Amino acid sequence: MSVKPEFRVERATERDVPLILRLIRGLAEYEKLAHEVTATEAGLRETLFGRRPAAEVVVGYTGDTPVGFALFFPNYSTFLGKPGIYLEDLFVLPEWRGHGFGRGLLTHLATLAVERGCGRFEWSVLDWNDPAIGFYKSLGATLMDGWSIFRLTGDALQKLGSGSA
Amino acid sequence: MSVKPEFRVERATERDVPLILRLIRGLAEYEKLAHEVTATEAGLRETLFGRRPAAEVVVGYTGDTPVGFALFFPNYSTFLGKPGIYLEDLFVLPEWRGHGFGRGLLTHLATLAVERGCGRFEWSVLDWNDPAIGFYKSLGATLMDGWSIFRLTGDALQKLGSGSA
Repeated sequence: MSVKPEFRVERATERDVPLILRLIRGLAEYEKLAHEVTATEAGLRETLFGRRPAAEVVVGYTGDTPVGFALFFPNYSTFLGKPGIYLEDLFVLPEWRGHGFGRGLLTHLATLAVERGCGRFEWSVLDWNDPAIGFYKSLGATLMDGWSIFRLTGDALQKLGSGSA
Repeated sequence: MSVKPEFRVERATERDVPLILRLIRGLAEYEKLAHEVTATEAGLRETLFGRRPAAEVVVGYTGDTPVGFALFFPNYSTFLGKPGIYLEDLFVLPEWRGHGFGRGLLTHLATLAVERGCGRFEWSVLDWNDPAIGFYKSLGATLMDGWSIFRLTGDALQKLGSGSA
């Protein structure tokens, strides 16, 4: 019988920026989207730990070793009239999978959501990621069939934002 | 030739709470989801105009008549290392459609996104809503194929949040 490794979750600080960028890149590689990462340490420092932090980050550790992270921010349900938590990124390093660390990070965030009076906790998943989909369902989460996401970015955003679309 | 009605967008204030709830209910009816609305005026007042507003609301007017609204909040792209804007609700009253008011609200938000240095502007759409899908594509927005949303809410959220899932 194997011993379950100890696991704890800590709020990230500015000193964790290089680690956070490494984990973001690790996640992007797993999602086959590494070419989309343009984030820099300077950009993360300013947007996550500057005057107006745009998101919260927690890091999961076993001993002194960081094994994964989660980045999240509040969202809002008009139907409930309540805030929620949206999980943008969840990632456990491949060499540390299978110990329940992903579940540990999700449990941490669900606890925060309940403490903050949130009506819901949401995230997105790639449709081909069957292991993740099965895992999320096992936690009681529901796949929101029938909804799709639209995104306006790059030149198209600049164009509509300048009123010239 | 018809005259194009004047249109302007204003930030909502606490006095607009009854109007906002009417518009949320109007949107829910259009989406065939009216049974899911449990928001109250008191809840909206606290969460949108209290000490820690969880979202921003703008109302579109023609003359003194409110014709629609948008509710939105910041999100964050780890790949870009930049904040974004997420549009939770956009609604134009059925009797005021066809005048470009929806486009006016989206243009207002795209302008805000550019002013705020956001990397992207996103929202969700119901897959059966072909008129909306065509409209969003005409603005240059991209449908994010291959992603689905998971939601943890109600008892399942409480259960995971209490560490007992």
